Amino acid sequence: MTSEGALLNRIKKAVLSAGGKGGGSVRLGIGDDAAILKPLQGRELIVSSDFLIEGVHFTSSHSPDAIGYKALARGVSDLAAMGARPIGFLLNLAMPSRRTGAWLDSFLAGLRRAAQMFCITLIGGDLAKNEEVVICIVVIGDSAPGRAIRRSGARPGDLLYVSGKLGAARLGLEVILKGFAKRSDAASLLGPHLYPNPRLELGAWLASHRAATAMMDISDGLSIDLERLCEASGVGATVYADRIPAVRILTNWQKRLKLPAGAALDFALNGGDDYELLFTVPKRNTVRLYRAPRSVPFTCIGEITRGRDIVLVDLAGRKSPLKPRGWDHFRSART
Amino acid sequence: MTSEGALLNRIKKAVLSAGGKGGGSVRLGIGDDAAILKPLQGRELIVSSDFLIEGVHFTSSHSPDAIGYKALARGVSDLAAMGARPIGFLLNLAMPSRRTGAWLDSFLAGLRRAAQMFCITLIGGDLAKNEEVVICIVVIGDSAPGRAIRRSGARPGDLLYVSGKLGAARLGLEVILKGFAKRSDAASLLGPHLYPNPRLELGAWLASHRAATAMMDISDGLSIDLERLCEASGVGATVYADRIPAVRILTNWQKRLKLPAGAALDFALNGGDDYELLFTVPKRNTVRLYRAPRSVPFTCIGEITRGRDIVLVDLAGRKSPLKPRGWDHFRSART
Repeated sequence: MTSEGALLNRIKKAVLSAGGKGGGSVRLGIGDDAAILKPLQGRELIVSSDFLIEGVHFTSSHSPDAIGYKALARGVSDLAAMGARPIGFLLNLAMPSRRTGAWLDSFLAGLRRAAQMFCITLIGGDLAKNEEVVICIVVIGDSAPGRAIRRSGARPGDLLYVSGKLGAARLGLEVILKGFAKRSDAASLLGPHLYPNPRLELGAWLASHRAATAMMDISDGLSIDLERLCEASGVGATVYADRIPAVRILTNWQKRLKLPAGAALDFALNGGDDYELLFTVPKRNTVRLYRAPRSVPFTCIGEITRGRDIVLVDLAGRKSPLKPRGWDHFRSART
Repeated sequence: MTSEGALLNRIKKAVLSAGGKGGGSVRLGIGDDAAILKPLQGRELIVSSDFLIEGVHFTSSHSPDAIGYKALARGVSDLAAMGARPIGFLLNLAMPSRRTGAWLDSFLAGLRRAAQMFCITLIGGDLAKNEEVVICIVVIGDSAPGRAIRRSGARPGDLLYVSGKLGAARLGLEVILKGFAKRSDAASLLGPHLYPNPRLELGAWLASHRAATAMMDISDGLSIDLERLCEASGVGATVYADRIPAVRILTNWQKRLKLPAGAALDFALNGGDDYELLFTVPKRNTVRLYRAPRSVPFTCIGEITRGRDIVLVDLAGRKSPLKPRGWDHFRSART
């Protein structure tokens, strides 16, 4: 008979040694009523939390290893989006008894790998029994005072950038949903969806060099996340379709997945789950970007404008409003 | 059509003005990728998170007002258990669309009242659509350096105390489960179960006066929580049944609820959900307790011993092992 205490010990054994010492800020980790953090001299703490729910954010065809990895990677991406350095995380995990065996081992293996990659240590959480798996990850990071980058700082004239390729995560999801995940040539397509890579190095560089005026991560799709950034900053934007670094979809996959022409741009605009950075840079700062870390490329896709309109300039040069069609839980799913 | 952004605005409008300014430590609250906290000079931050899940922690017969209140009160009780002062909380809320109307309004009203009572401000969270309601609350507080009280500091010879009455929350739950919640004379019985009162003032006093060596809150039941405190401290304990401040059950309720003789002591030992404080005090410190705040009474129920045995001395003076029979999610529910 598995008790809560025994489960907690398994989780501690599997994950606790990964992730380092929490940047010297963790005074008391997992096992008490609460964790104790003492930020290093003058630094600010950055806190965020996210759900990952079975049947909503993942399906039974997702491997528990990928679920464990991604649960933490999504949270860490929120730290990257502020330019923060990861310190610790809390794991809140509800699951049925039948998942406490091999499923949990695999989940913890994925979680452990993510903790190691992102140098973030387990400091607390909660366990509950529940018919469906519900994960709620809390991440805590730190930042030099006043350097964390908010969504609200974009100004008219700033140039608009994204990191990496957009739409790659959505392409991976299509491969899974349409039943091609086990093909040997599908593996590389699945990576961006199953094992996203939060852009910690780029985010931290932009923050420490005061290069960007606003930043967020693209978790629900460029179209909806850009609307959120513009709303927070009280500005509009113009985006050029031909500059968007959209995922490249090979012809055989385009056919196999029965994707319409234009799917790549649609995935890039509305796909979600990319965990790339969206940021704005004043023109006078763009020269500094030559010294930015090269761990991930970044691309200028447009500019910030006065007013509130968000405009897409299509491949033929025509302008139209860019409608937010990314992921919104309480609209009718993906519209 | 309700969008996630519209829901977020309703939550902010309902809850954000409550709870004050976060003790001067909140630099950036809800609405960005993460919140930013800057602890006041030298202070440590205390962090905890808890689930509250429909069908596990509450049923459809619980009012959404009570669910909203209790979700936050349980988290705040973890801060009280460290002797910390509340600063901010993150609300992670998953629910079906049919709950976004009157249900959500009532839930937010309860949450708002709790935020005001405990001086804690909403600083972030996540929303998701899900068939069952899942709440995960993250609480953050602060404490003078080195003063937070852990579970691990109890030493042989220390006296063992609890605050308030034990078993009252379980009695309220029985009233609800057996269908008597709507009786006019039931209201006072329901309070401890629906609207628990975290012992912030007592916890903070014990921490700031270095009066207690170990402390935790009783969330799953005295028998199981005392075992956890003893395990963390590497000690045993002796508890005297005649000293335990058990809930008083009136004869007419004892009959109405068909409770066996001894139910009051059973509820006090194993009931759970009391959110009273369990703490240990060296004998030389007990004189200081006369100056403790009188907002809640506290009672010496036994003492800490060498070894690992946890012993209950019953009303007839007989000793027996005190078995942990409180709430453990991954044993077969309440055993």
